[in-house]
Amino acid sequence: MNTCASPVAEHPLPPSRLMPAVVPESPRRRVLAVGLIGPGRVGSALLAQLRAAQARLSRDGGLELKLCGVVASKRMWMDCDDAELNGRHGGAQIWRPSDLDAFAAHVAGNEGRHALLVDCSANDDVAAQYPRWLADGLHVVTPNKLAGSGPLARWQAIRAACAGGGRFRYEATVCAGLPVVQTLRDLIDTGDELLAVEGMFSGTLAWLCNRYDGDLPFSALVREAHHLGYTEPDPRDDLSGTDVARKLVILAREAGWSLSMEDVEVESLVPPTFASLPLESCMERLEELDAPMAAKLAAARAVGGVLRHVAHLDRHGRASVRLTVLPAAHAFAHSRLTDNVVQFRTRRYCDNPLLVQGPGAGPEVTAAGVFADLLRVAESLEARA
Amino acid sequence: MNTCASPVAEHPLPPSRLMPAVVPESPRRRVLAVGLIGPGRVGSALLAQLRAAQARLSRDGGLELKLCGVVASKRMWMDCDDAELNGRHGGAQIWRPSDLDAFAAHVAGNEGRHALLVDCSANDDVAAQYPRWLADGLHVVTPNKLAGSGPLARWQAIRAACAGGGRFRYEATVCAGLPVVQTLRDLIDTGDELLAVEGMFSGTLAWLCNRYDGDLPFSALVREAHHLGYTEPDPRDDLSGTDVARKLVILAREAGWSLSMEDVEVESLVPPTFASLPLESCMERLEELDAPMAAKLAAARAVGGVLRHVAHLDRHGRASVRLTVLPAAHAFAHSRLTDNVVQFRTRRYCDNPLLVQGPGAGPEVTAAGVFADLLRVAESLEARA
Repeated sequence: MNTCASPVAEHPLPPSRLMPAVVPESPRRRVLAVGLIGPGRVGSALLAQLRAAQARLSRDGGLELKLCGVVASKRMWMDCDDAELNGRHGGAQIWRPSDLDAFAAHVAGNEGRHALLVDCSANDDVAAQYPRWLADGLHVVTPNKLAGSGPLARWQAIRAACAGGGRFRYEATVCAGLPVVQTLRDLIDTGDELLAVEGMFSGTLAWLCNRYDGDLPFSALVREAHHLGYTEPDPRDDLSGTDVARKLVILAREAGWSLSMEDVEVESLVPPTFASLPLESCMERLEELDAPMAAKLAAARAVGGVLRHVAHLDRHGRASVRLTVLPAAHAFAHSRLTDNVVQFRTRRYCDNPLLVQGPGAGPEVTAAGVFADLLRVAESLEARA
Repeated sequence: MNTCASPVAEHPLPPSRLMPAVVPESPRRRVLAVGLIGPGRVGSALLAQLRAAQARLSRDGGLELKLCGVVASKRMWMDCDDAELNGRHGGAQIWRPSDLDAFAAHVAGNEGRHALLVDCSANDDVAAQYPRWLADGLHVVTPNKLAGSGPLARWQAIRAACAGGGRFRYEATVCAGLPVVQTLRDLIDTGDELLAVEGMFSGTLAWLCNRYDGDLPFSALVREAHHLGYTEPDPRDDLSGTDVARKLVILAREAGWSLSMEDVEVESLVPPTFASLPLESCMERLEELDAPMAAKLAAARAVGGVLRHVAHLDRHGRASVRLTVLPAAHAFAHSRLTDNVVQFRTRRYCDNPLLVQGPGAGPEVTAAGVFADLLRVAESLEARA
């Protein structure tokens, strides 16, 4: 799950094989003010990626990224404070109590500059601000699924707010850095017609189903996954399937279908009795999952199939997230242990669907998905000082 | 290989589930003049897709696509001719002898409008014009692999010419409409580092390897594929592996590696004696392929593996296109019969690579890949009347 150490030290490509970047003589210069909401695992990975790329983006692409501030749940930093107090504090960052409105206003500035907020929180109150920010012309990029899968009316308000020119991008909400949302967008914008989406949108559930072959009880695998960090701190968050349902809603709405969470038939692997228990009690009682899962595995085996936790969406309005018996030859039966996989069937890709697969979680790949969205917004900005 | 008939008539989504498009109040209006070079299978599929989308793009996105002309190898149509003669010819198209320079000048116009040429020819003389067109500020979008995989100096001239603002996009050169080139571009632009690319870039060779299990001789499968239209009219074009090598060169250069065709180690499945024979003689002598292929299949089976025609590129400068023995559990051992598959290993995707799979050829999906590139160029254009 870690990135590889930089391979440059081992067998680097001979210098003559690396081509110098072609630097435009007079690249279209744009300045983009950026504010980060939520400096957690993904947010801080993103900051590191942006800082590492800043010089290259300026030199090769004429894009100046100006990090104006970072706001966490309780405190925030804004670059204006540092500038003011720089002499007195020796360059250290000044943090003040969080004020999201003041933060957004600061990033937007007073002179109509290009400004973008990255929401790496998982906070519904932040998502609730998007319509206002977008209507004000701020761009919003996020891996936060709450806007895309939340109340339909709010989602529609967000789309309407984009009419003023604010861009809203959310590639990383579905399978982190895998090209999924934009792939669907391109299919539709070029006139294709979505028939169905199927996938495994949870690396945790994929890992559990891939490993669960009856040798170990299901509860043992849940404990192992928890120990390895393949689950959320509370494994019920993975086992409930709710997170997967959110991704399905996001894709459905991308295709123009008015789906909401309540329309998705979700098979939770969490017994109803567990829902209100404290975490430790759940962890002690995981064995209660074993008998039902063993029965499902036996049923799959009886028809020569495998068990996979599959998200399904189609143009008849069917949306489900559930354990499914798949033939052993199915594309989902051979994925790598924690991979996500997404399969699009469309009018043009009907006999053979379009499939994307790979790690769908983790701070580095998620941050990169957000970063790619930011670059796409930057590409569409008019040259402005 | 065909698109599905429109499914609207069967079980359509209830009208209440389809959301109306949100139409911006005052969308950023842009006009893009478009000229098509090469109205063959892909080019005419693209024209149909563009025409079908024209009204929607204008209404929902503020984008006016203005088709200014179509140039074939011998004759061309330009909209100015029709306008002039419209009265006298009752609206029929007027075709005159081809003149690529005049065509490009006509699409560019006299007033600095946004203009884009789509090159759907497979013609090297057309590709040779790209540096000049781009330097003049014309955008170029193409599925034609000759520029991207041709002489390195010409490719570098094209990149340098883009410095003036002309955009050059070529997603459909590698696996048609599958998200491959842009996926690699995003990985690199967000600071990731490519370690290796592997894939099956030929649907024909994938089909042959998938079907070749020893029951039928290899030559019988080549004949069947030829009959089904899964090969080029001359199957040597598929069996040589040259087309696959071109795609590998394009990806290598995208990653900043100075690869050219002569650097790729290509295992051709065409015996050297066949190279200069007329097509009918080759077709009669296909049985000469059978013994060598049977030996390779036996060798693969002896180690419990499968034979696949794999393209490989890595940061040590190794580039090859050849029959490879893969373990039966390999991701490439389970693709659908004619699918292309591309797998990226990077610093962030090192343990589990990023994989894209699906149909990598065919006029509709190729045209859609070109169309998506056109939309991306359009997105980055400044508002201009």
